Amino acid sequence: MTAPINLADKLAQVDAHWSPAIVAELNGQHVKVVKLLGEFEWHHHEHEDEMFLVAKGSFDMHYRDRMVTVRTGEFVVVPRGVEHKPVAPEECEVVLFEPASTVNTGANEAGELTRAELPKL
Amino acid sequence: MTAPINLADKLAQVDAHWSPAIVAELNGQHVKVVKLLGEFEWHHHEHEDEMFLVAKGSFDMHYRDRMVTVRTGEFVVVPRGVEHKPVAPEECEVVLFEPASTVNTGANEAGELTRAELPKL
Repeated sequence: MTAPINLADKLAQVDAHWSPAIVAELNGQHVKVVKLLGEFEWHHHEHEDEMFLVAKGSFDMHYRDRMVTVRTGEFVVVPRGVEHKPVAPEECEVVLFEPASTVNTGANEAGELTRAELPKL
Repeated sequence: MTAPINLADKLAQVDAHWSPAIVAELNGQHVKVVKLLGEFEWHHHEHEDEMFLVAKGSFDMHYRDRMVTVRTGEFVVVPRGVEHKPVAPEECEVVLFEPASTVNTGANEAGELTRAELPKL
């Protein structure tokens, strides 16, 4: 882990959208990379705050009362309990920082978009 | 925290080198920005793994047995207990991700470089 990890190189290994891959772990947190395209589902996380940092492109984070656009070099922190839905009109490359326990679809019943077992890159 | 935070905007508010500022908190971790220039001191952290992500420029992370250069878009994770010394021949802008308990000079006796109270941007 003491060797440099290149985010663009890791993201180049990701094909599918909405399928996070783990690139590092520290202090019980995972660093993940994920490619977004299209619309995710509404969800929240019971016990985890979630950070989305845009490495390339932009996406819209919908909350129940508003929407914000997150651009390259920007991040949002979604606190636990807050419903959210990321939407990417065009492909967007994102770095996630969140507890190792985080499941992408949160407290929702597991479904088509759920990724419980994540690859490590 | 649900509004976007722009890393370049936050870094533009930092004047001093080796003086981290907190830009977000989640899951007991801090997201910090810091500008590096010159040589820091050897130190380690007893209980904290530390992530250095380069937003602009590059720096050298020295370990006791080797050195790695970390460039824009790359990061390293320094596990707890591992001695390290960042050196930036030219100014480098870095994002830190680490537990809120982390002090920049680690287990060293507090000295000139120690920043115990960090500003929030």
